[in-house]
Amino acid sequence: MLEMRAMNQAAADRIMAFQANKDVTSPFEDLDLDEPLSARMQSPVTPPEYIEWLLDSVLPDCINMRSPRCLAHMANYLPDFIATLGSILAPLNQNMAKRQASRAFSRLEEDAIVALHKLVFGFSEEFYVRRREDAGVFGLVVSGGTMANITAMWVARNQCLGPLPGFAGIEEEGADAALRAHGYRGAAVIGSDLTHYSFDKAMGLAGFGTRSLAKLPSGPRGRIRLADVEARISEIESAKAKVLALVGIAGTTDCGSIDPLAELGQLARRRGLHFHVDAAWGAPLLFSRRHQGLLRGIELADTVTVDGHKQLHLPIGTAVLLFREPTAATAIRKQASYMLQEGMQDLGSYSPEGSRPAASIYLHAALSVIGQSGYERMVDATIETAGYMARTIRRRPEFQLLMEPETNLVLYRYIPPGLRDRARQGSLTLGENRIIDRVNEQLQSEQYRAGFALVSRTTLRESLEGSMPVVALRAVISNPQTTSADIDAVLDDQIQAARRGRQEL
Amino acid sequence: MLEMRAMNQAAADRIMAFQANKDVTSPFEDLDLDEPLSARMQSPVTPPEYIEWLLDSVLPDCINMRSPRCLAHMANYLPDFIATLGSILAPLNQNMAKRQASRAFSRLEEDAIVALHKLVFGFSEEFYVRRREDAGVFGLVVSGGTMANITAMWVARNQCLGPLPGFAGIEEEGADAALRAHGYRGAAVIGSDLTHYSFDKAMGLAGFGTRSLAKLPSGPRGRIRLADVEARISEIESAKAKVLALVGIAGTTDCGSIDPLAELGQLARRRGLHFHVDAAWGAPLLFSRRHQGLLRGIELADTVTVDGHKQLHLPIGTAVLLFREPTAATAIRKQASYMLQEGMQDLGSYSPEGSRPAASIYLHAALSVIGQSGYERMVDATIETAGYMARTIRRRPEFQLLMEPETNLVLYRYIPPGLRDRARQGSLTLGENRIIDRVNEQLQSEQYRAGFALVSRTTLRESLEGSMPVVALRAVISNPQTTSADIDAVLDDQIQAARRGRQEL
Repeated sequence: MLEMRAMNQAAADRIMAFQANKDVTSPFEDLDLDEPLSARMQSPVTPPEYIEWLLDSVLPDCINMRSPRCLAHMANYLPDFIATLGSILAPLNQNMAKRQASRAFSRLEEDAIVALHKLVFGFSEEFYVRRREDAGVFGLVVSGGTMANITAMWVARNQCLGPLPGFAGIEEEGADAALRAHGYRGAAVIGSDLTHYSFDKAMGLAGFGTRSLAKLPSGPRGRIRLADVEARISEIESAKAKVLALVGIAGTTDCGSIDPLAELGQLARRRGLHFHVDAAWGAPLLFSRRHQGLLRGIELADTVTVDGHKQLHLPIGTAVLLFREPTAATAIRKQASYMLQEGMQDLGSYSPEGSRPAASIYLHAALSVIGQSGYERMVDATIETAGYMARTIRRRPEFQLLMEPETNLVLYRYIPPGLRDRARQGSLTLGENRIIDRVNEQLQSEQYRAGFALVSRTTLRESLEGSMPVVALRAVISNPQTTSADIDAVLDDQIQAARRGRQEL
Repeated sequence: MLEMRAMNQAAADRIMAFQANKDVTSPFEDLDLDEPLSARMQSPVTPPEYIEWLLDSVLPDCINMRSPRCLAHMANYLPDFIATLGSILAPLNQNMAKRQASRAFSRLEEDAIVALHKLVFGFSEEFYVRRREDAGVFGLVVSGGTMANITAMWVARNQCLGPLPGFAGIEEEGADAALRAHGYRGAAVIGSDLTHYSFDKAMGLAGFGTRSLAKLPSGPRGRIRLADVEARISEIESAKAKVLALVGIAGTTDCGSIDPLAELGQLARRRGLHFHVDAAWGAPLLFSRRHQGLLRGIELADTVTVDGHKQLHLPIGTAVLLFREPTAATAIRKQASYMLQEGMQDLGSYSPEGSRPAASIYLHAALSVIGQSGYERMVDATIETAGYMARTIRRRPEFQLLMEPETNLVLYRYIPPGLRDRARQGSLTLGENRIIDRVNEQLQSEQYRAGFALVSRTTLRESLEGSMPVVALRAVISNPQTTSADIDAVLDDQIQAARRGRQEL
């Protein structure tokens, strides 16, 4: 008992010290394990020995996701109370799939879902009271944005290809029978080429194949074009196939751009199509009076994905799929005999996942503690910092901005000295661009190795540089503790990393 | 800082006190929330205020999953070090989908997967070293057993209906095209009627429909019969359909029974079929020299599901899908442009889920701390306690054993006084059985309400009582702290609950 207190305290102190050092990584080859775990299992260690080993030998090699110079990931800053909450939620081990194994926490989860639902759709309090009495499901908590998107496509598929006289529905009879019964020759989902790869998983998994995901060009601003969508819908429908869903992205993973949601939503309504908005990244913009206009039209969505570990600053492992219409989840309902306790709406029966942890309590806590105003401040501040970074990149000859940031992701690249004039004139050849690609790849790896700061990288199909694919450095600016001085330091470090890599031409 | 220490300490003390009281629930209607969270968000509270509220107003209404009298759930006892580990893992927030966001933890995860792989398949150390160099994937960590089973069916489907000349494979072209290209008229998965409902989800999701899951009768011992399987395979194949997988269950959710794995495995080999073993519940039996024989044949499986929160006693949120052949995961591989960092095998590309938390470190810790011998002791002790419970039930006139426990789930029911003679003679009518069903349903609800102890309930299609469906009380005996005195207390409490419910006839 006393030993455990000491262990808890040591852990808290060590993690705080680790995170206070702003370096992102330390020199690392591969973790040196004396013996494989399968051997170690034969002579167990005590809990304090294990915790001590973890803190001494493993912690220094972790990634400091919270460093204000770690701009590589969409998960970064977490509020301090998360550790305390983690120490409460882990041992209680409530199972949110079953009310008799969660109960009070299920009520908090539902309350948190309703708060997000209201933020997105803005219905009245009375709507939520009434629909709750009708056993409405306002949303499902799943393990991440990927599962939310997969579930949304599953719901859309089952609604489009549901039961008919003599046909029990796609869920029961399968894709092949469903197309025949409904008289379609195929099915498709339409989105831009920046749709998250979870949609590839969704369509591969759902039995229509990744080819059935129509990816329309997003162009240099990273947005789907309405005319392309209309044309593709007509094309699909005239081939006697069914459009299962139209996907709009509220904050692309690649560059943070936002599709024209209002136009897409209106189009979907007009054509009677399921409209899904992947707001895994962007949903918290709704907290900001200054920026919520960017998401205008999200309220027209049938389903919306919201991710906890991105701009809601929760630990990885929580996302919510919201349903505009609280009966939608019945399209994927399942039940097991050992789950049938009368009067209990066990949420496990609606979700792709079964037993799941009480991670939604992090969401409940964060909405209570950070609140509307706290999220607004974080969103406003990080978008401002991203703007600072973009302006700085424009000003500095070593870099080239590849995309005008719409929110808080900055896409840019380093240009070696010998190519800066040609880059400025916009006259780089394909071969020169390939050289610049290699330089940026090596720069990113070198920065990761050295550990002072970190960005990630991606390949842009189109950019301010034109319509050839180029490698971009990708800075995600969503840590509210990242200052403009940190931004300067990250960029300076990249110039150093490029020099160290002897990449100067 | 000091405030946080106080908060952490208060939380640890309160949770320990809550769990030390062996009651499972407290009287509870619905959590009384002053105002909806959407309103509360407008005037945030401080972290200590929130934690205090959680401990004062919510904790008392949680379920004490760890009570030795809570026999309702497959998740129960957790080792003490879990809380400390939770307070480390939550704030570090490493993202296991991406090595540049997890790194050291990814190495521990891989080590833990290998330890389980070796436990199940027993390959040599040299196999793991060699296949690791070849970028082999020994298993995937997913959020739970459901996702593991869904993923296994996804892999089996994609392997059975892969690319052919002129056909890019089911993942890309869909189910309809795959059947045509391969010349099949349909596809099916074969398992018993006790397969977990995640297989319904898997087949519904995978595009073949829940009908394509052939559920063969499990009979009074809860085991699939080989002759039925052989007959069904022939039937499916002579209808020119494809058997995607044969599923064997190592510990059914309903009653803990184990399918004849060796016979199923040999049959699958002979017929060239994918053999999946759902060992979500039963895998840890392999730690026990006394009981591991029950799982003979599991080493013939192509894929095996192991769940962390069941008999591995980890927090909910971790399962592993093991691949006998470390190249199998390529069947479901996806990649995103922002994930392409050379030399990095990002596990996110193989898994149905995207970003995911470092929950596998709980597994690594438990294998290190509890070890082979600790798990052996827990398995042996709980199976012994389950045997005690079954013998006690046989002896006591108030109860009837409905199934001979094969592992550590006990299925039984309460018999009201007026029907005990007829129950003993085996001459209950259908109507009398329906009355007994209602009595047991009410008994379970009443026990849940009163809170002293808890079991769950299920419906058995066949039992020692014959081949009519009956409602069973279901006691899961996997908490190593549950003693025979606790078992007596749970049964006594059920007799009281039946009396209170005025259910005596």
